[in-house]
Amino acid sequence: MAEHTVLFDVAEQPVHVPTGTLLSEAARLAGVELNQPCGGQGRCGRCAVQVKTGSVRSRSTLRLSAEDVAAGYVLACQAVVEGNVAVAVPPQEKIERRLTTDRTVREVSVPPGYDPAQHQSIRRLRLTLSPPTMDDQTDDWSRLKWALQKQMGRGNIDISLRLLRQMGARLREQDWQVTAILDTPMWDFCPDCPARLIDLIPGHVPDEEPLWGVAIDIGTTTVTLWLVELISGEVRAQVAEYNRQIARGEDVISRIIYASKNGGGEELRQLVLDTINELVERACGRVKADPQQIVKATIAGNSTMMHLLLGIPAASIRLSPFVTAVNEVPPLTAAEVGLAIHPEASVDCLPGVASYVGADITAGVLSSGMDDTEKVTLFMDIGTNGETVLGSSEWLVTCACSAGPAFEGAGVVDGMRATRGAIEEVWVNSRTYEPSWRVIGNVKPRGICGSGLISLLAELFLTGVIDKGGHFNTHLQTPRVREGEHGPEYVVAWGSETAHGRDIVLTRVDIDNLIRAKAAIYAGFTILAESVGVPLEMVEQVLIGGSFGKYINVEKAIHLGLLPDMPWDRFQFLGNTAVLGAYRALLDRTARARIQDIASRMTYIELSADNRFYEAFTSALFLPHTELNRFPSVAQALGQSEAVAPEAP
Amino acid sequence: MAEHTVLFDVAEQPVHVPTGTLLSEAARLAGVELNQPCGGQGRCGRCAVQVKTGSVRSRSTLRLSAEDVAAGYVLACQAVVEGNVAVAVPPQEKIERRLTTDRTVREVSVPPGYDPAQHQSIRRLRLTLSPPTMDDQTDDWSRLKWALQKQMGRGNIDISLRLLRQMGARLREQDWQVTAILDTPMWDFCPDCPARLIDLIPGHVPDEEPLWGVAIDIGTTTVTLWLVELISGEVRAQVAEYNRQIARGEDVISRIIYASKNGGGEELRQLVLDTINELVERACGRVKADPQQIVKATIAGNSTMMHLLLGIPAASIRLSPFVTAVNEVPPLTAAEVGLAIHPEASVDCLPGVASYVGADITAGVLSSGMDDTEKVTLFMDIGTNGETVLGSSEWLVTCACSAGPAFEGAGVVDGMRATRGAIEEVWVNSRTYEPSWRVIGNVKPRGICGSGLISLLAELFLTGVIDKGGHFNTHLQTPRVREGEHGPEYVVAWGSETAHGRDIVLTRVDIDNLIRAKAAIYAGFTILAESVGVPLEMVEQVLIGGSFGKYINVEKAIHLGLLPDMPWDRFQFLGNTAVLGAYRALLDRTARARIQDIASRMTYIELSADNRFYEAFTSALFLPHTELNRFPSVAQALGQSEAVAPEAP
Repeated sequence: MAEHTVLFDVAEQPVHVPTGTLLSEAARLAGVELNQPCGGQGRCGRCAVQVKTGSVRSRSTLRLSAEDVAAGYVLACQAVVEGNVAVAVPPQEKIERRLTTDRTVREVSVPPGYDPAQHQSIRRLRLTLSPPTMDDQTDDWSRLKWALQKQMGRGNIDISLRLLRQMGARLREQDWQVTAILDTPMWDFCPDCPARLIDLIPGHVPDEEPLWGVAIDIGTTTVTLWLVELISGEVRAQVAEYNRQIARGEDVISRIIYASKNGGGEELRQLVLDTINELVERACGRVKADPQQIVKATIAGNSTMMHLLLGIPAASIRLSPFVTAVNEVPPLTAAEVGLAIHPEASVDCLPGVASYVGADITAGVLSSGMDDTEKVTLFMDIGTNGETVLGSSEWLVTCACSAGPAFEGAGVVDGMRATRGAIEEVWVNSRTYEPSWRVIGNVKPRGICGSGLISLLAELFLTGVIDKGGHFNTHLQTPRVREGEHGPEYVVAWGSETAHGRDIVLTRVDIDNLIRAKAAIYAGFTILAESVGVPLEMVEQVLIGGSFGKYINVEKAIHLGLLPDMPWDRFQFLGNTAVLGAYRALLDRTARARIQDIASRMTYIELSADNRFYEAFTSALFLPHTELNRFPSVAQALGQSEAVAPEAP
Repeated sequence: MAEHTVLFDVAEQPVHVPTGTLLSEAARLAGVELNQPCGGQGRCGRCAVQVKTGSVRSRSTLRLSAEDVAAGYVLACQAVVEGNVAVAVPPQEKIERRLTTDRTVREVSVPPGYDPAQHQSIRRLRLTLSPPTMDDQTDDWSRLKWALQKQMGRGNIDISLRLLRQMGARLREQDWQVTAILDTPMWDFCPDCPARLIDLIPGHVPDEEPLWGVAIDIGTTTVTLWLVELISGEVRAQVAEYNRQIARGEDVISRIIYASKNGGGEELRQLVLDTINELVERACGRVKADPQQIVKATIAGNSTMMHLLLGIPAASIRLSPFVTAVNEVPPLTAAEVGLAIHPEASVDCLPGVASYVGADITAGVLSSGMDDTEKVTLFMDIGTNGETVLGSSEWLVTCACSAGPAFEGAGVVDGMRATRGAIEEVWVNSRTYEPSWRVIGNVKPRGICGSGLISLLAELFLTGVIDKGGHFNTHLQTPRVREGEHGPEYVVAWGSETAHGRDIVLTRVDIDNLIRAKAAIYAGFTILAESVGVPLEMVEQVLIGGSFGKYINVEKAIHLGLLPDMPWDRFQFLGNTAVLGAYRALLDRTARARIQDIASRMTYIELSADNRFYEAFTSALFLPHTELNRFPSVAQALGQSEAVAPEAP
């Protein structure tokens, strides 16, 4: 087969590929990163590149305008090399890497009563062994094991071959004085279960020396890592970064598709490991800790993220009947997983419940405390999967409603993630229909993030720019409502006001996507409540997790019919509950056992097979809902109308 | 530092090394294998090479004659490169690789009453799982685990990350019909201890399909491997090969020294793995089995061999107070150890007792049955370490007496291993002092192996060629006794009769080495008997293990004072008891537990710190012994004298 030369303007070297190679594959070989939020399915249009010379065969030009196509733009994931080509990569597709971290740091206090001796599974023991003599020729491992058993009061102890190889030298280096680090995760539950030796340090390490662990939440979008000192329980550094997998698919479905391609799974595994390992470096750098001294990691994340991290095929998650390969991952070590911390560090992947209710939710339930209160509680993670849990200390039911990534800025023309340049809140004048907005970082806007979209949609509805079906009122006297390339649209910002010089708009298609997303979430928790016979009014608190949820304006979310109409004081935003749960599990064996208990107690309700869900979803495809009596406060607001924009900040 | 070129005549390429590099190191880099039986200490003289051009600095020329030195011979392990050199490797030092296997195959029968369902820790279960549906979205691993638990009646089950990655595809390949292979080593003893999943095979594997395991004995000289079908219990192939580590030290001490050098440990580990993996290939080739289908290995071997196999530093074994790093190796997998069988195969390294009483002895005791009889039994492994066990089902004591490698042909001028061309038995005419001999393979002799040395020494003693102190009677009328380069010697074969054209002799120094070896062994078991207050006469049976032992002539060994003077019918030669013990442990969980029990019951007596041992050793430095009354049958034979040579075979 003929070989062709492909030269990317941003690459150092051309690459040589056979006829039929995708441009996206050639880019990968050339080390050129392209955004592929849809996972290379040709659906999102984000991998568009411009062919300067030579020709390619383009399977699809979806989302490209006629002008784009005329100018030589193709979708890299749909264009097949047929000869030598030179390709330009548009600068706007350069991948954003750095997260604005000020949004991710939070105050965390050590749980009251935390006592490492009581709660921490990691133990650090100082031992003084009697050296072997001709009268006591006990082998090193038995000598060490007996000393450990004596100090711990019991126990089987596991040692790895790696540590066996180092043991003799470590014991002798400081004359049979040594500090042992062990993990005893099952200490309280299984007296016969072995403790595991993680490290042997020559000499006696003083108590003041920090003992390090990390709590990690692998989000589809963002990976969050807390560096924790395990004796004090203090969080010493908080860092977060976009999951590098984003460039290979913006949502879990796209990632699963990408992972199913040849080598895709391994590539995604490496990308998330790179993300985590860089975060470890960054967190350690802040407090001058050595990553090799981190001896324990707890990991939360949705089921897809967990599978991809571990290199376990995730295809069955996407296909009916939607099952994971594994919900409860066995205990692993850092070396097995590929984390750049102490190779023998315990890696505890927290348990999930189902394909779309993962360890991020079980950890979130723990940190929300809903499993420990008599109050009937609704716990929600407003995101692509719309995971929802209803219950109390007595019972727990859960579901996921495939909301789609609209609230995360995907599937919306000018949607973007909640980062610098994103419009995060909007007010629309009810007479002039002119908007004002607040932008993250106080810069010129580049797009609209989830909270901004909710805010905008609610404002457009209350001011009558759109009706309850989401249709534009095209009779309004305003240049803001116009006919765009894809139908009617509202101009949020004119090109003169934006960072990139293009108008920022919300289209009819965007609105449909947003309404479908909110309808799915609303239908999810109503069906959940119905299935256990608990009317929504009986819900005593609504806890909203997920870092996105933190920025939602409750009033506007109720106006849309995204959240149920309840007194505002029943709502509480908890931020990233997943990493908080991982932190609790990192500190406390009992908390870890509680997550296990939560996972096994949760009854999972599959909505995709449920006709009631489909009906509830259809009824919710209106603003706020077909049945306005479910939303008395919105009915009242619609009566008053006229939302007034505050002073622009 | 200056670089020099070193060219070996047998190498394809020259190598470039800095000033000060040892020639032996240069040889290693060039891929030239040199014999280094002493481990590179400059003691054995076997790594002699001839420097053709250029110069080296020679630290020691021990064991080289003045003529050798004049001809440019140096010891590769003692010669330091100082300029460009060309080196010739003498052909006689080419390393012997192939073992005459006819000596290693034996009849083995399956233990009576062997029932895999009862005894075998490996279980093969055929499962038919109900596929997941929208009403049963159990994750794959729970689904599989529950089916396994149901079929096994109980249990915790461990799965590796490697298998988790393959599980989903394996389950679906044959429509949720699958065959699981598990190891349940602790089944009888610990109900909570997990079974370990080794493999998942799509479809239902019929019972007739073989299930493979291997029993391995890693000897210092020879590695023996039996390929076993685990359901029938039958040994389907027996193979053996020289341990490739031999070229890096002939005895354990030399190996430990070599391993302590930079990279030496890893090199030795790789050499023994190469040996084992080649044996696996060979055994599987014979019965058309796939090495990847071998799911369990049990390994016996002395403590040094076990440490070197696992890459665990063995230095402390050699140095007072002589302790191992580990006597009881934790359960491992083939991937961890580096065996080229199924990566998840269980690798069970059998437990040892002390630095010089290893798993070869505990396995040997099991297969000898001495731990299960009321008869007072003496079990001996006549070799370098002279391991000896005394006891019965009631009690067991053990010791090792550093006999040195004389009986293995090392430390003796014309000594060699028991292979083709070795004189294995000798008769000396009591009037003419002319010898006749039997050679392994019926070829011209190249040297004398251990059994030949015992035979020769006994004959020389009984015919009066040497006296009880091992001194030559130089007044005899025979050209066979002469003054050699290193003192008086006996010519066993004239150059005209030998394969290499040189005389084969036994020197005064050789005789001293042999007497010291037999004295150490005799002193060992007498002190053992003394220490428990059991007179040697009370010993009801003497069981001799080790493949070497099989060929000893009891009468002659008693004449020398190597074995105690007892009726011949109390002696029994068991051959390689270590591999037999490993085989029993491979088949039977109970046998494996018995080895554990043997290891923990055995009281180890350290002789090197024992004055009584030194006295007993000194008294035994005569033929047969200072106290002739201990050897009444020898006294009688000396009275009759006149040993008559039989017809040459």
